[in-house]
This record gives sequence, C-alpha cells and structure tokens, in this order.
Amino acid sequence: MTLNKQDQKSFLSRGFNRRDLTKIAAMVAAGTTLPFYNEPALAQLSRVDNVPPDAVLINANENPLGPCESAREAVHNIVNSGGRYMYGETDKVVKLLSQQEQVKPDYIRIYPGSSAPLHQSVLAFASPTKPFVMADPGYEAGGRAAQFIGAKTIRVPLKADFSHDVKEMLKQGGPNAGLFYICNPNNPSGTLTPKADIEWLVENKPKGSVVVVDEAYTHISDAPFTTDLVAKDKDVVVLRTFSKIYGMAGLRAGAAIARPDLLDKLAGWSAGMLPITGMAAATASLSERNLVPERRKMIGQVREDTLEFLGKHKFSYVPSVSNCFMVDVKQPGNNIVTAMRKEKVYIGRVWPVWPNHVRVTVGTSEEMKKFQAAFLKVMA
Amino acid sequence: MTLNKQDQKSFLSRGFNRRDLTKIAAMVAAGTTLPFYNEPALAQLSRVDNVPPDAVLINANENPLGPCESAREAVHNIVNSGGRYMYGETDKVVKLLSQQEQVKPDYIRIYPGSSAPLHQSVLAFASPTKPFVMADPGYEAGGRAAQFIGAKTIRVPLKADFSHDVKEMLKQGGPNAGLFYICNPNNPSGTLTPKADIEWLVENKPKGSVVVVDEAYTHISDAPFTTDLVAKDKDVVVLRTFSKIYGMAGLRAGAAIARPDLLDKLAGWSAGMLPITGMAAATASLSERNLVPERRKMIGQVREDTLEFLGKHKFSYVPSVSNCFMVDVKQPGNNIVTAMRKEKVYIGRVWPVWPNHVRVTVGTSEEMKKFQAAFLKVMA
Repeated sequence: MTLNKQDQKSFLSRGFNRRDLTKIAAMVAAGTTLPFYNEPALAQLSRVDNVPPDAVLINANENPLGPCESAREAVHNIVNSGGRYMYGETDKVVKLLSQQEQVKPDYIRIYPGSSAPLHQSVLAFASPTKPFVMADPGYEAGGRAAQFIGAKTIRVPLKADFSHDVKEMLKQGGPNAGLFYICNPNNPSGTLTPKADIEWLVENKPKGSVVVVDEAYTHISDAPFTTDLVAKDKDVVVLRTFSKIYGMAGLRAGAAIARPDLLDKLAGWSAGMLPITGMAAATASLSERNLVPERRKMIGQVREDTLEFLGKHKFSYVPSVSNCFMVDVKQPGNNIVTAMRKEKVYIGRVWPVWPNHVRVTVGTSEEMKKFQAAFLKVMA
Repeated sequence: MTLNKQDQKSFLSRGFNRRDLTKIAAMVAAGTTLPFYNEPALAQLSRVDNVPPDAVLINANENPLGPCESAREAVHNIVNSGGRYMYGETDKVVKLLSQQEQVKPDYIRIYPGSSAPLHQSVLAFASPTKPFVMADPGYEAGGRAAQFIGAKTIRVPLKADFSHDVKEMLKQGGPNAGLFYICNPNNPSGTLTPKADIEWLVENKPKGSVVVVDEAYTHISDAPFTTDLVAKDKDVVVLRTFSKIYGMAGLRAGAAIARPDLLDKLAGWSAGMLPITGMAAATASLSERNLVPERRKMIGQVREDTLEFLGKHKFSYVPSVSNCFMVDVKQPGNNIVTAMRKEKVYIGRVWPVWPNHVRVTVGTSEEMKKFQAAFLKVMA
C-alpha cells in the first residue's frame, strides 16, 4: 500500500521524509482495525445514533448520576456570565487540585477533559522513530494520535491477571520508545496494574521517554494515584478527567499533572479557552468532601451485583474494579451488541484482540436490571 | 541565541533537523514581542488578574450582553444530562449552520471556539519551510502556533485604508507560503478588507497554500461572509466563533468551515468532545432569527457614539466597524492602559507595530460612559 499524494504531501509538510512515508504507509496498511485519522468521528469512539428515548445507554462509560447537585448549581449560577472568558474559573480548579494532589500549581494544566492531553502527549512524545506503547485491549484514542503522526503503536497484551505487562511493554518498546500509556484501572477491562509495576516502568524506561498514567477511572476503584511520582519530578504525566466519577462528560473538564517542562511540551499543540460551565462545575465537585467515596460505593455496589448475576448464570467475565467490565459472549461480540440494541440496551464496543468480549458500562441499578433481562434473552 | 537542550530535543523529536533548529532559534530571538510557546498563558492573550468587582472590562473583545435568553435557557435545561457525551448536540449545530451557510454538513466541523481550529490550521498548513502570513497589527494567536512548530510568521502592515495588503502578503509569502490569515474585520483594528481582495488572494496564491478567513467579528460588521468560496471548493478555511456577537466566550462553541479534505488536515491535531452546554446554547442562538441584526445594531450604536466622542475631543482613532477600535494615545500605549486601570477601566493591549495605539472593546453604553470619563482624565 502507498499513501495518496495528498497524504504524502501532508506528511512531508510536517517534516517527515520520504523514508518515513514508506513506514507510515506500511503502518496504515497494518492498522486494519482502526479507522484512519481523517474519519470525522475521530474522538467519538462510543458514538451511537438514533437511540430510542427509553434506551439503556451503558455503552460509553458515562456516569448516569451526572454532575453532583452543587456542580449543577454552579453551572446555573455562571450562565449569565457566559459572555466572558473568565480565566479565573480555571485558576480555581488548578488551586483546588493542587492542594488535593499535593503538587505545585504549575504542575497542573487544565483541559476540557483528558482526551486532549492524551492526544497531545502522543504528539509531543511519540514520533515516526519513537513508538507509542500501550496495552491490548486498551483505550484506543492514543493509538489514533500515533497513527496521525506516523508513530508506531505497539500493543502489548495484558497479563493473565489483566494487569499491564510492563516488562513486555518495556521490551517491545525498545530503546527508542517515546511514550508508555497505562490506563489504571484499564479501559476496557476495568482491571488494575499494581503501582509497583508502574514505578518499575518509570525507573527502567529509556531515558527521554515518558509514562502517561491515565487515571480517568482511578477514583472509581480504590487504587492509589501516581501523582506522588509527579511530585517527585519523574517523567510521568498523569491524566485526570471529570467525566467519570464526577459525572461531567458533557460539561468537559480534566487535567494533565506533570513536571512543567513536560506540560509545556503538550501545551503548544493546542489552544483555546475552557468552558466556564465545566470549570465552575469542577470546582464545585472538588469541594464536595464525600462525593468520591459515596459514588465509588454506589457504582461498586451495582457493579458487584451485576458481576454476581453474571457468575450465577455461568457467564465468564473479567473481574473489574471500575465502572465497566468485559463479558465473554463466546461468539463474535458484535452479534450480541446488535442483538442487545434490539432490546433497547446499548452496550459498549468490542476490541479486536478479544473478539468474543463486549464492554458493558455500569449504569444505575435499574438500568442494570434491564441489562440483565436483555442479556439473558439474547444469550439464550 | 541558541535554543536550550530541552527545546532542541523537543524540536528534533518532531522531525525537524539541526538546520531547522538554527532557523528556529533565530526566529525566537527575533520574536521579541511574543512570549515563547511554553508560557502557561498561551491562549490567554487578554488575561487580566485581580480585577476589582466594579471594574469596566473592555479589554478582551467580550460581549457584555452575554448569551441570549434562549441560549441561557438551553444551558439550564441540559445541565442534568451533563453525565453524557451527547454527540447529537453537536450534530444539531452542524445541521443549522449547514442550512444557514449553504454548505454541505461535511464542510462543517464544530470546535470549542475558533482558537483551536486557528491553531490547528497553522499546524496543518504551515511548517519550517512554509511560512504563515498575516497582517500587522493582527490577531497574534496564529503566530504563536507558527512559532511553536518553527514556521516563520510574516507580518505585513495593513494598507493606509487599514485593509489587509493582500498583494504584499502574496509577495512576501513567496511561492512556499503555507497559510494566509485574514481576520475580517481585523482584530485589533476593527477594519474591513474588501471581499474582492480576499477573492483575488484565493485565486492568485501559490498552489497548496490555504487562505484562512477568521470571521469571528464579521456578524458585527455588515461585511459579506466568504463561505460561498468554501461552497465553491476553494482552498479556504472559514473560522467562526460564538464568542463574539452571540456572547458565548465562556461557553465555548465555534466552527471551521471548509472542504472536507482541508478539515481532515486540521482534525488529527486535536481530540476531545465538546461541551454540551456550549452546543445547546449555540443551537438556541442560531435559531434566533433577529439576534444578529439586533445585536449588530446595538453594538454599532455604542461604537458610533464612542467614536463620535473621540472625534469631538480631537483624539485620532481607526474607523472601526467591529466591537473594538484602536485609539492613538500619542505616547506608549501601555502608559494609558496602566493609568486607565487605576480608574477601574480595563482596556485592551498594545500591538508592537502601533506602539502608541491601544485597543478598546465596545462595552455597554453605561460602560463606555465610564470609559469616556476615565479616558478624558488620564489623557488630560
């Protein structure tokens, strides 16, 4: 396969040489399961359309609880100021996060979610000669960014205990690895990687490479954070989002936490002000002392009930500690995704490496009852 | 001047060679008036801090009217769904814009404002060998993106009539020009460039280059849009924002309108979902038939009153048709900016090419009365 003239020109204009183009073309040819970068729905991995109004949406790891009460209030209160940029609203988020995470304010950069800093981490630290290393199955977004810039994505299967295989990631990444991506708990498997493994990777990775720890789901588990590694000035970028436990996917707030020189390397790739609605809601959410433990407990209870149901009916599943889990449907997963939609239950997608597993998000207790009924029906 | 080791490594990792580094270092050395890309406040050109609560903020081309009533309502109504990504809210904006601009839906890509697509246009179309060409004075953000990737920014003075000097831009851009940036009306001068000049540039520019027309302020003037050039499949990217006439700077919504292959070239540089608050407010705003003409009239009236005041007091100013104007203070502009702040009136910044001019945003009638009083006092 060769790249078309336009793509060739586009890559050449970005400073890649003709030899890179051959490499890029080969990777595009090999990347059969990922859509190419110019698909309009670039970031919309979980997008579904024409959903009936009474459907159960447990496809996108959204939090059905939505923003907490004080966050909703904060949005209502700030709307009339919507004509102003209000940078100070972002500063408030930085200040609170800085106190809570015990890192200096300049170690925190706020983004409209964590997709942007993940994408920009790949643009900053990977390149055609510096591969991007991630787990398989793993959250795909970083791989798309790598594909766009012609960086190789190395996908390393999870270990038997569903943790990241950091030793194998290091080995396969080689001496030129640019970025190691660890999502903890992992999306889609909902499983943890021991902090000691992350620390081992940070200590043993090639000089100049960076470990990005995506902590989008960490609040939902009770795993330790890795912001202490950031405070110790390690080559670590921690990603946070308010989309998950804080129920703010639609409001947009998130952060990259890292040494300022690493944050600067991301910063130049993007521009734009932040939604004051998201900022005000983030500040309100961070100010709620009990929100995280309460929601962790609620989500955990529904997850445990659902996994218990699966066990009782002899379905095998991956033991998750997050707000999603993978269940083995013993047939091409997309069959079941499609069949479930007919029951108005929208479950998540299938990862090529585990073609017989589907990802299911933990919804409300009521939603999971509907999931259970539909799942029994379609699996019968 | 040389780049430090870290910056060198960063550029090298992005595919630039050592010869580029020398060039980049020279440009950094020359670009004395712009902060370098790794300043945290990258996009916050108009940022002010510690502003007294009763201050008049006419520094950032914000719209003091804020979002229209139905847009505010739309935000209130969608907050409870804040836990969901709701891609459909973005589709609604695409659909309405597509109808109103008479371009196909796939010629429209929605962004959280227009800063992001401006930045990404520069990343996509400029490079160390393909300069970025803009007016002087002009909106600086594109130049920062160019600086980040080591692309040269060519600043071409406005003509005597304060329009873009498209012939000189073409000439100075040379055969390798990557991107011509035209903000119309121009920020900060508030002055128009005839559409015929833009069309001439589009027809005569080097093959492979792109003309980006920033229409952030076009609704406020009654200048024609250039979306018809997009519909004709020209190499034109039109930028729109809801920050200005729609009063949604804090809510974040904007668009790039261009041929899909051009939009695809921007798309890979960014990722992330859009704030549903901004999307819902944008849809509501676009649905208001009379909003644009009414606000154009209101803003225009206050602007004309203010310019008349300036004329009456023999101040010279640039005749603006936008929501900002430049006034000649016959001394270093920053003296006056500082003095005005003591009067609790925050006016905009100074452009190096016109060091004796300050940019003033058109606020409410009441705010401009305070501006007038303070301005007479500090200029006395």
